[in-house]
Amino acid sequence: MIIGTLGSHSALQILHGAKKEGFQTAVVADKKREDFYRNFSFIDNILSYDSLDNAVIQINKMKDNGILIPHGSLVEYLGKERVDKIQTKIFGNRKIFEWEADQKKKMELLRKSHIKIPEIFERVEDVDRLVIVKLNGAKGGKGYFLAKNKSEVKEGISNLINSKMIKSEEEVIIQEFVIGVPMYFQFFYSYMLNRTEIFGIDIRYETNIDGLRRLPYNYIKETNPSPTFVVVGNIPAVARESLLPVALEYANNFVKTTKELVPPGIIGPFCLESIVTDNMDIVVFEFSGRIVAGTNLYVNGSPYSWLYWDEPMSMGRRIAREIKIANEKDKLNLVVS
Amino acid sequence: MIIGTLGSHSALQILHGAKKEGFQTAVVADKKREDFYRNFSFIDNILSYDSLDNAVIQINKMKDNGILIPHGSLVEYLGKERVDKIQTKIFGNRKIFEWEADQKKKMELLRKSHIKIPEIFERVEDVDRLVIVKLNGAKGGKGYFLAKNKSEVKEGISNLINSKMIKSEEEVIIQEFVIGVPMYFQFFYSYMLNRTEIFGIDIRYETNIDGLRRLPYNYIKETNPSPTFVVVGNIPAVARESLLPVALEYANNFVKTTKELVPPGIIGPFCLESIVTDNMDIVVFEFSGRIVAGTNLYVNGSPYSWLYWDEPMSMGRRIAREIKIANEKDKLNLVVS
Amino acid sequence: MIIGTLGSHSALQILHGAKKEGFQTAVVADKKREDFYRNFSFIDNILSYDSLDNAVIQINKMKDNGILIPHGSLVEYLGKERVDKIQTKIFGNRKIFEWEADQKKKMELLRKSHIKIPEIFERVEDVDRLVIVKLNGAKGGKGYFLAKNKSEVKEGISNLINSKMIKSEEEVIIQEFVIGVPMYFQFFYSYMLNRTEIFGIDIRYETNIDGLRRLPYNYIKETNPSPTFVVVGNIPAVARESLLPVALEYANNFVKTTKELVPPGIIGPFCLESIVTDNMDIVVFEFSGRIVAGTNLYVNGSPYSWLYWDEPMSMGRRIAREIKIANEKDKLNLVVS
Repeated sequence: MIIGTLGSHSALQILHGAKKEGFQTAVVADKKREDFYRNFSFIDNILSYDSLDNAVIQINKMKDNGILIPHGSLVEYLGKERVDKIQTKIFGNRKIFEWEADQKKKMELLRKSHIKIPEIFERVEDVDRLVIVKLNGAKGGKGYFLAKNKSEVKEGISNLINSKMIKSEEEVIIQEFVIGVPMYFQFFYSYMLNRTEIFGIDIRYETNIDGLRRLPYNYIKETNPSPTFVVVGNIPAVARESLLPVALEYANNFVKTTKELVPPGIIGPFCLESIVTDNMDIVVFEFSGRIVAGTNLYVNGSPYSWLYWDEPMSMGRRIAREIKIANEKDKLNLVVS
Repeated sequence: MIIGTLGSHSALQILHGAKKEGFQTAVVADKKREDFYRNFSFIDNILSYDSLDNAVIQINKMKDNGILIPHGSLVEYLGKERVDKIQTKIFGNRKIFEWEADQKKKMELLRKSHIKIPEIFERVEDVDRLVIVKLNGAKGGKGYFLAKNKSEVKEGISNLINSKMIKSEEEVIIQEFVIGVPMYFQFFYSYMLNRTEIFGIDIRYETNIDGLRRLPYNYIKETNPSPTFVVVGNIPAVARESLLPVALEYANNFVKTTKELVPPGIIGPFCLESIVTDNMDIVVFEFSGRIVAGTNLYVNGSPYSWLYWDEPMSMGRRIAREIKIANEKDKLNLVVS
Repeated sequence: MIIGTLGSHSALQILHGAKKEGFQTAVVADKKREDFYRNFSFIDNILSYDSLDNAVIQINKMKDNGILIPHGSLVEYLGKERVDKIQTKIFGNRKIFEWEADQKKKMELLRKSHIKIPEIFERVEDVDRLVIVKLNGAKGGKGYFLAKNKSEVKEGISNLINSKMIKSEEEVIIQEFVIGVPMYFQFFYSYMLNRTEIFGIDIRYETNIDGLRRLPYNYIKETNPSPTFVVVGNIPAVARESLLPVALEYANNFVKTTKELVPPGIIGPFCLESIVTDNMDIVVFEFSGRIVAGTNLYVNGSPYSWLYWDEPMSMGRRIAREIKIANEKDKLNLVVS
């Protein structure tokens, strides 16, 4: 059996883990990145493409003996229509993709899981506090902006429309900007072991917002630079232990809700992107229904994965392990779609 | 022999390490957290409690064959009186607890160890620079505030009294707020090996102060939000190597002073919470006389513990190792109290 | 064979790695730090010195059977003239030192490698945006300052001259201050394996700039404290996977350029110190032609080194491994100078 993934996001970790679990590996990579992926001995096959349509053809070469591991760049690069043409089995539940792509459905899933979420403003007119305006889809934060009031929201949306990032107001979600610190809780729901594991925690490293604080006060005052939120990396963290039972309860609720609303529910990795407030509330403002790039920190295991496993367990390896267990039990069809 | 701890703070790490060293393990946990701790196979026994008095009863069930590992939440949750009723042996020196609980005694221990500390203002009237006002006990930073001058100090103390967080001015300590970067140096003093080991370094992740910097300048200017300092996690770091000899010298001095003032002195983990200034001075503004939550980062060993041990050594495991060595030498009574 | 280094910077990691590869080890340490280095069992010999001239004598004791691993503190502590008197073989290419010490030559090397760099202002009069003014040599950021315009640049240079940190304007480099987030890409060029490995990524932890953000807005407004940039530690990070092919291409270009301009070119560790902008551009504002202290984070391997090696590989160990391979192939002379 071959485990494959698209050459971006967390491909190195995924294939490194797959190899450790004894699988053949393949990366489906843009021709320009072929040389890059050739550096890593755990990648057995490089299926290079020169167009996005061709990428789908390359992926489908594995349809008889392969499993594709999806990640945040898959839908983002290929687009929904091309993803629908993928015939190779995909790890996890494909139906989660459309919930993930739609900020409004996303928040509904969280709300139904009894997870604390930020206030959502359906109409610009209702904005009465600091908000963050987000775009649908996992674009790595591109285009997101902060606004203090209605008129700043309107202005920002106009800018997005003018710069052709969106077509209409409908494509944004207006969320209360919760004051606190960001913390991204990564989980793995194992259908085979019937449990949700806390995998790790990361903080996103965003340009230019995480750089602006290095500017001198006088300069900021004079130029008032606009913060941007493009994710370019991740920083590791652990949480106060008393936060973990709450985080895990949220995660278990989330798994349950997806079983009801998007059967057979989430399978494998997911992430609850949160702000922790000074009341120790975990406020989840977004989720990812697949592996997040923050797990790239933990190629040799995370402070939490070491508690579950007595071996170095990356999220990539954890996925491969789940496939291996399912395969051994002849239940592979339960973890792919 | 059984190693037990209260279910919070660094319990997972402590019990994971104890199991690795071959001990039976027990967590004394709030009934509501029972399910949470049941996820981890290295926990052999869950002694659940429904009241704090009952927690003490559960702890005392281990009095014949157990050792309790204390951490920051023990005194904070149970309170001094209940802790005094613990009959189970406690790892380390119980007498350190009262020094730790009293900010003024704390600073005295540091001063006598020839460790650089921030200016302390005994009287509000003496305040002549930016200060941080702190509460006694390890409340995770709750209630701490910054003040630029006498009147802000007075106002802040009134607020604390009004909100019933303190009863009088006597319960706070007013410290110079040293300009520099926070760095928390974790150590382990081994009575058995007669040495102080540098264990690791962390930076506390505090809400909302570490989130406020993400707010746009205009918003801050208009709303001037008050920073809060509630610790919700930790971020790993290493120090410039030339800082380490100074840090270790401080640590050795500290061990020596505790032997004199609180015999038999500190045993096991402690932490020197510091600000490093741009003169490369390490200014210690607080210490913890037991395991700190920042060590939760290093479940598989830290960049420093790998230098001492050729195996993954967490602080939890290091404690268990010390107990094991003491037991083998029939000197257990020297490391517990 | 003995591997030695000067007792500072990354000495612990270097000697720990050397011991793992089976070498004898020696640290050449200031007498005051002798006790410190005695704590670590992987250090076989401590050659202590009481003057910098004596340090050279100590280093030269290893001239028949030793290899000295250079790091950022070597040239900085000893000065060029003393380094020229070192007869012991030095790992890597000594000639890189002078390129590294000269900010202008540095930028030339990067420019010729087709690496994006910040605008450089040759004359104070040309300054038309926010700039950072830097001093030659790796002084850990000491003396660096930000300036918004010509007059602030002039004032800052006068201050440096008055405080005797520099003698003339010629000793500084005036660089555009690129808005984005810092990210330091660490590499290892293996002459033996004929490849450039991505080793790891770190963020420098600088005092007081990384602490100022914790000050309340009102205090900053009133006092407008000057940021300083003294590196006192490092924080780990990973980059978005799509940045890695670009970073590695830059690194390969850099290796090629050094082969042309400073034959036989860079050998072993180097670092491209970068700002990542919100266009996802990697702008390299400096390089280090030897091991950087940021690799101290990865004593047990980094998220990237685990992808190349199935064993814990620190940068210190990687250097020792290269020496071992070269020695086995009887090609030691190709990796030392």
